[in-house]
Amino acid sequence: MAAVFALSILALAGGVHAAFPDCANGPLANNTVCDATATPIERATALIDLFTLEEKLNNTGNTSPGVPRLGLPAYQWWQEGLHGVASSPGVNFAASGPFSYATSFPEPILMSAAFDDALIHQVGLTVGTEGRAFNNFNRSGLDFWTPNINAFRDPRWGRGQETPGEDTFHLQSYVYNLLTGLEGGVEPQYKQVIATCKHYAGYDIEDWEGNVRYGFDALISLQDLSEFYTPQFKTCARDAVVGSFMCSYNAVNGVPSCANSYFLQTLLREHWNWTSDYQYVTSDCDAVQNIYEPHYYAPTRQQAVADALNAGTDTDCGTYYPEYLPSAYAQGLFNISVLDRALIRQYAGLVKLGYFDPAESVSYRALTWANVSTPGAEELAYTAAVEGITLLKNDGTLPLSPSYKTLALIGPWANATTQMQGNYAGIAPYLHSPLYAAQQLGFTVNYAAGPGVDDPTTSSFPAALAAANASEVIIFAGGIDDTVEAEAMDRYTITYPGVQLDFIDQLSQMGKPLIVLQMGGGQVDDSELLSNPDVNALIWGGYPGQDGGTALMDIIVGNAAPAGRLPVTQYPAEYVYQVPMTDMALRPGPTNPGRTYKWYTGTPVVEFGYGLHYTNFSATLGAEKNCDSYDISTLVEGCLSYSYLDLCPFASFAVNVTNTGSSVTSDYVTLLFLKGEFGPAPYPNKALVAYDRLHAIAPSSSQTTTLNLTLGSLSRVDGYGNAVLYPGSYTLVLDVDSKATLTFELTGLESVIDYWPQP
Amino acid sequence: MAAVFALSILALAGGVHAAFPDCANGPLANNTVCDATATPIERATALIDLFTLEEKLNNTGNTSPGVPRLGLPAYQWWQEGLHGVASSPGVNFAASGPFSYATSFPEPILMSAAFDDALIHQVGLTVGTEGRAFNNFNRSGLDFWTPNINAFRDPRWGRGQETPGEDTFHLQSYVYNLLTGLEGGVEPQYKQVIATCKHYAGYDIEDWEGNVRYGFDALISLQDLSEFYTPQFKTCARDAVVGSFMCSYNAVNGVPSCANSYFLQTLLREHWNWTSDYQYVTSDCDAVQNIYEPHYYAPTRQQAVADALNAGTDTDCGTYYPEYLPSAYAQGLFNISVLDRALIRQYAGLVKLGYFDPAESVSYRALTWANVSTPGAEELAYTAAVEGITLLKNDGTLPLSPSYKTLALIGPWANATTQMQGNYAGIAPYLHSPLYAAQQLGFTVNYAAGPGVDDPTTSSFPAALAAANASEVIIFAGGIDDTVEAEAMDRYTITYPGVQLDFIDQLSQMGKPLIVLQMGGGQVDDSELLSNPDVNALIWGGYPGQDGGTALMDIIVGNAAPAGRLPVTQYPAEYVYQVPMTDMALRPGPTNPGRTYKWYTGTPVVEFGYGLHYTNFSATLGAEKNCDSYDISTLVEGCLSYSYLDLCPFASFAVNVTNTGSSVTSDYVTLLFLKGEFGPAPYPNKALVAYDRLHAIAPSSSQTTTLNLTLGSLSRVDGYGNAVLYPGSYTLVLDVDSKATLTFELTGLESVIDYWPQP
Repeated sequence: MAAVFALSILALAGGVHAAFPDCANGPLANNTVCDATATPIERATALIDLFTLEEKLNNTGNTSPGVPRLGLPAYQWWQEGLHGVASSPGVNFAASGPFSYATSFPEPILMSAAFDDALIHQVGLTVGTEGRAFNNFNRSGLDFWTPNINAFRDPRWGRGQETPGEDTFHLQSYVYNLLTGLEGGVEPQYKQVIATCKHYAGYDIEDWEGNVRYGFDALISLQDLSEFYTPQFKTCARDAVVGSFMCSYNAVNGVPSCANSYFLQTLLREHWNWTSDYQYVTSDCDAVQNIYEPHYYAPTRQQAVADALNAGTDTDCGTYYPEYLPSAYAQGLFNISVLDRALIRQYAGLVKLGYFDPAESVSYRALTWANVSTPGAEELAYTAAVEGITLLKNDGTLPLSPSYKTLALIGPWANATTQMQGNYAGIAPYLHSPLYAAQQLGFTVNYAAGPGVDDPTTSSFPAALAAANASEVIIFAGGIDDTVEAEAMDRYTITYPGVQLDFIDQLSQMGKPLIVLQMGGGQVDDSELLSNPDVNALIWGGYPGQDGGTALMDIIVGNAAPAGRLPVTQYPAEYVYQVPMTDMALRPGPTNPGRTYKWYTGTPVVEFGYGLHYTNFSATLGAEKNCDSYDISTLVEGCLSYSYLDLCPFASFAVNVTNTGSSVTSDYVTLLFLKGEFGPAPYPNKALVAYDRLHAIAPSSSQTTTLNLTLGSLSRVDGYGNAVLYPGSYTLVLDVDSKATLTFELTGLESVIDYWPQP
Repeated sequence: MAAVFALSILALAGGVHAAFPDCANGPLANNTVCDATATPIERATALIDLFTLEEKLNNTGNTSPGVPRLGLPAYQWWQEGLHGVASSPGVNFAASGPFSYATSFPEPILMSAAFDDALIHQVGLTVGTEGRAFNNFNRSGLDFWTPNINAFRDPRWGRGQETPGEDTFHLQSYVYNLLTGLEGGVEPQYKQVIATCKHYAGYDIEDWEGNVRYGFDALISLQDLSEFYTPQFKTCARDAVVGSFMCSYNAVNGVPSCANSYFLQTLLREHWNWTSDYQYVTSDCDAVQNIYEPHYYAPTRQQAVADALNAGTDTDCGTYYPEYLPSAYAQGLFNISVLDRALIRQYAGLVKLGYFDPAESVSYRALTWANVSTPGAEELAYTAAVEGITLLKNDGTLPLSPSYKTLALIGPWANATTQMQGNYAGIAPYLHSPLYAAQQLGFTVNYAAGPGVDDPTTSSFPAALAAANASEVIIFAGGIDDTVEAEAMDRYTITYPGVQLDFIDQLSQMGKPLIVLQMGGGQVDDSELLSNPDVNALIWGGYPGQDGGTALMDIIVGNAAPAGRLPVTQYPAEYVYQVPMTDMALRPGPTNPGRTYKWYTGTPVVEFGYGLHYTNFSATLGAEKNCDSYDISTLVEGCLSYSYLDLCPFASFAVNVTNTGSSVTSDYVTLLFLKGEFGPAPYPNKALVAYDRLHAIAPSSSQTTTLNLTLGSLSRVDGYGNAVLYPGSYTLVLDVDSKATLTFELTGLESVIDYWPQP
């Protein structure tokens, strides 16, 4: 046993950074792995063939020691990059100077509110570029454990901030654009970095009433699995051809995800055709251990590691593989070919990154510190914040009149710095707080921290009320932050924590303009603020990143116009008492009022897609070809050349948007929903099927965009998980206030366009 | 409004410390308040008569500005001292040198396990003395918000660590001895300090499933209120004549405690005769605000402050009194006499501390830094830890053979420092970790942190297993700490958090002696460790304070012998799924398996009162007068000279304890339980009625103690809350393993010995 321990310690030594193997003069120079004309699988296979059994077993954890005798460097697989190159075992920021920081974008939940795919693509591209530059100087590995695309199913979830929201179509569109940015395209010659779609699948509970993510068994119907929990992962695998997947902590229907061959083989590799030889699955950190405990799925530690390896978990973030695969192998619990397959997949991934190729043939190797936190990247971080910030209420107080000179800036977010980054953050070049931004704008600012996010006491009130008293305008910046929503910490209430509502109410009685900034990733019930006429404006600001304060203040004073849309439903406070977080069903039931805007049967406080502007818009919606009725069999027959029928175009619709205001230039997001009673009951309230963001529409002028629908846009999912076209009446609705509608029929017999593999 | 804000800010300026009024030459010199021959109420009344209305209103919060024009200094009412002078608004530790630290005793939950009233009295005396010394040098006020005596009703409670456990009799005995130490006696001429019994009443939920302490309404039957939730408060008020009470955040049966005149007037001041003029009630911090929100009991802020003041909450920890009493008064919501009463009570409290008397007449004024952290106090902190530490399992491995030279010391408590203090701590003179103590004992120690308390990952395993591999003996120090049980944070599970059980299991397979230290205030389910024969010993160590590591290691090597007894029930893990934390009932029901050793119908993992020794004991139990039967009416008639019948002696019992071992001198705790089917069904399993701790019983020698029972010991509580003597058969049982029993009868008619006031 001692030998294994010693090796494991080696494998875990921190701070191991990428160094490229020497394919010119090193021991591998004449091995096929160094032959750039061979395929990745040929190259990786040739490499693994050189490994002894012990060397194979040692390279199965996230901190891979490599094989020194072969000149194969150690490699750390764990890099984070959720919204910028982030602090993590494989990322090593310098104390100062070059590589001491990286661009820190807003959290995904805020970026998603921009509904701007091009923006997201650009963000992905930038994060990937900065990661590559870090790697070139031995400060990062080449793969990043991003994005988190579990849907924001329940408002209590502590990690909802990391996701692009609650809507599957939106998630799919977002993640496709992000991934092709991060990795540098769909199946490029060399990947810029490898991204990792996580957490596959059904993961969206941290710790709720003793249900801890490591041991929670999510009971999910095939219908919900196909319709809600996996479409975004399908997009990763099948359409964006991402380099890596991460299996999740939880079990689904009794099987821990990292031991779930239905997930890892049947759906992922077979149904979604994720078969490029350089694709691998990593476990979430110690999810392999969790198969043994606390899932108690495998009776021994050896069986747990064998179950994971056999199911298709290729590398273990943790120590269970290097520690227990040796004895599992001795017990005959897996075949050597399965271990080889796992290693070949990993190293083929590195091949695909150009890891074994000459620097001069991999253009990414030329990236340096000059490519990090460039003026363009800084501008992009600012833009991402501005585009996502969402105006929820405004009685005309905003944009603020230039006549005001003194501001009270109060609340737990008023002087936010790292708070603005949320979780999985790196070191930012700067962190411009609302306070800093207000001062830069020339205001005389009376700042007071006021009550903390979850502070139950009133001790801060007098000083904060005095600051308000001394000012012309009051801005309260509060809501929630990572002290109440975080990894390993779900919420139990979705009201404003602490005494914030009491305090805001007192501010509202002072007879001064009052603007409330509701910050944080999850929503809080704004009912009281929306109904209080003395709360003049309400803005949701998420976690706005390095330039968040500037973005918020620019919107407040009108230097920028808000056009973000809420990417989640804001439920009333009582929602948390109406459905257990552990109820995974989307559709309403006796103890479930339904989840997301598609299925919620109550009245949301603020609905999905809502967002105000500083001007007014009108819009028209027209089909490119006028057609009132489509025959289903004709539609399907016209698509037979497509590998995936759901991607086959159905029709395009032109949306013409006019800024009917007279003074403010503004962006506008075209949200196109589909409604109708077709397919199996119950019917969703509506479903987002397309969107675009139009930029800078000047007063009294118009812009047009084309929204493309596919057969997938029209399909619904049956009880087996199949995607089906159903006859019926379909109505397209533009925007949440129904600015325009368009109706058409589908006729003929229903037709399955995707058969869901049965477990 | 501006004037009020400005005053409030003044009232809240931090760091205000006690300075004594100048009764010799100051403006008050000729006022009756400075006349030491007058009574406290005369003196305080004369002082308040000088206040303007505004001055009265300003001195209603915890940070009292005093009255500068009268030479009345500012006074901060908020000092903490749960287990030593503690960091808090009124306590100001020096950066270095004198008053830079104070003795830091174990948390009450561990001290209570000593079952040593004399020890607790000494601890109280020491904390009070150190507090006085701090006050004499302007580093503390004179009142302390300790003790926390809510019973540890539910194992999930985050603040159970602060309490003396789950048993009411134990709580009563503990708190009486602590208070008479802290305050310097029962109604002494001058109080050493004022103690504050908290949290009155029914407070024992922090934040569970959205039930937050500030707004939780505890539904409590009169029977449980009288029998379980208030006896310890009765002891405070009626028997120890404590100086102050704190009303709690929660409501009981619809009424927030700080607005509950049934609690504050009927029970406290009338039934328990808490009528000395220098006694006052403070609110928990911002509990007055909570009456308005989130209890929504009062419709306006003005009504909330008036409700609290009228009910008998004399001072507000918070700002609501100074902010809203002015407008409440303008609205006629309270009479000026009620405000005067509140102020007189507070200032009479200061009179009772000698605040207005010449220094030379108050002996406590002579205390200095020389009286803080004395060698005796340091020894007492060590003794308190040793006496409380409880041995739960031992196969003979302990005390450790002197032949072992190398120890692996592993786990999140192995190098504990401030962790050993738990919450409400001050700055300790030193913090001797287990690691330090082991090194001092001359061991070669292989230290590894191993997995953190709630660490879900295995990344620490290899280094920790290597440390174990290199050692002869393994000590794992884990369990829980303030990261998972804390103020504002209840638990949802009572298993070992994180991966500790997996890790301990791996340690147990190494073929070496393995000792587990289960640390923290709440219990975790030890089943797996108790049933694993390769876990050789198990010790519960609570939060052992400044010398905790030394105490633990001294017990392990046999320099000290364990004799602590578990002051709570250790429930199996599934308990948390059997009863909601919010179910306040003690007796079993359809969704409640019963609470505490008295009512729990399941099998505890470790029962209340359990604790092993390094030797064996036998014991005999005998009545001083042999009597098999007592007539109830005769018993009651013999007690008519007693103001409180429950305090009237019933009988004394001699317990003779023999150490039957041959080598180890050891303390032994005599726990005397009463059993029997008398009074209303259901019947408790048993009830603790007396205890004592015998010290240093040498091998083959005996000691005797006398345990005194009162009528109260025999009484049970009926559905109205009345304490009643019932006819029936009574059995006394010595110790949890029934070392001796004694049976007697009560005959005749039942008789109420205390009529409970009906609400």
